[in-house]
Amino acid sequence: MNLKALCASHSRMKTLMIKTGQREAFVDISKQVNAIVKEASLSAGICVVFCPHTTAGLTINECADPAVVLDMKKALGEIVAEGSQWQHLEGNSPAHVKASLMGSSVLLPMVGNALKLGRWQGVFLCEFDGPRERELWVSVVS
Amino acid sequence: MNLKALCASHSRMKTLMIKTGQREAFVDISKQVNAIVKEASLSAGICVVFCPHTTAGLTINECADPAVVLDMKKALGEIVAEGSQWQHLEGNSPAHVKASLMGSSVLLPMVGNALKLGRWQGVFLCEFDGPRERELWVSVVS
Amino acid sequence: MNLKALCASHSRMKTLMIKTGQREAFVDISKQVNAIVKEASLSAGICVVFCPHTTAGLTINECADPAVVLDMKKALGEIVAEGSQWQHLEGNSPAHVKASLMGSSVLLPMVGNALKLGRWQGVFLCEFDGPRERELWVSVVS
Repeated sequence: MNLKALCASHSRMKTLMIKTGQREAFVDISKQVNAIVKEASLSAGICVVFCPHTTAGLTINECADPAVVLDMKKALGEIVAEGSQWQHLEGNSPAHVKASLMGSSVLLPMVGNALKLGRWQGVFLCEFDGPRERELWVSVVS
Repeated sequence: MNLKALCASHSRMKTLMIKTGQREAFVDISKQVNAIVKEASLSAGICVVFCPHTTAGLTINECADPAVVLDMKKALGEIVAEGSQWQHLEGNSPAHVKASLMGSSVLLPMVGNALKLGRWQGVFLCEFDGPRERELWVSVVS
Repeated sequence: MNLKALCASHSRMKTLMIKTGQREAFVDISKQVNAIVKEASLSAGICVVFCPHTTAGLTINECADPAVVLDMKKALGEIVAEGSQWQHLEGNSPAHVKASLMGSSVLLPMVGNALKLGRWQGVFLCEFDGPRERELWVSVVS
């Protein structure tokens, strides 16, 4: 294997499928992402999770108390008013706005072949237009 | 070429110039970024687009229906009230806030020497204090 | 040193400790991050700063006029109302929401062994539930 192939192999991408059960939901995907990272051959690097959808996003926040992400869902509902007049005819413009407010990717440090997050942190798929089956693309860069 | 030079060459940075035509505009830059990525020598990795400005940002959202980003512009106008009293004397504090809400960079997966985005996704330069000529810095990490 | 070790060494992670003096504060950490980057052996790449906390975030915005981040603090206070009824009993739900709005990481381009930011840009730790001592994890990927 030559140098270029070795370096390229560091960034192979894996797909994670997540079913969301409600119109809006914050789904803790930390365990699933960690399982993918553990399979990777690098013992250090940065894990990138990318959301290829436009009415769902990704964020990192507290996973210890599930009330935190319920409050986040409520707060976003107050920040982006459902009742505004929108030009996009599908009626899900607030979902698009919330997706951009959360962001389409997260960066997760790795140490010793595992994710290294803060004590209270979890990685959340933020569903704003479900229920759906969503896919996420997980890569590792070194 | 030694090892270090090879690895360093993976992250060379290219500049993309974008003219924005209005005070606020979401400009789809997907094609321009993809053209830069196609020139890069790596066939896989993660593309990083960085916005070096403080009253413009970057986001990924739907590019199929242009109404989506018009709704996003409208929503951000409601989220950050123009009429508040600001300490920053230039009068563009809402533009600074919106830039941070969107973020200063996006991560874009690559496969086979091209960006790999979701079906409905485009990459947008979010102009909040134009019209101006903005520059973006595009890198690839593997 | 073999190839794998060389590549892994590119992403070693360093910890930066920052004391915040108020409940809410935007602390410019550009100099401290730059000092870490200058110690790194790579002359190009992308610096990743990660915040392992759930009531603090990171953003990039104007550092020239300190009024800009004061306005940002005020705007976020209007965006996320303190007076709402929250389920999370610690009473700091607005801090969690603001942390996700800003984001848990920033990507910073590097050139010639130093951060390369836009003319007016600084990197800010966004404290929403201080005063505390916070830690940040700084990595370089190439």
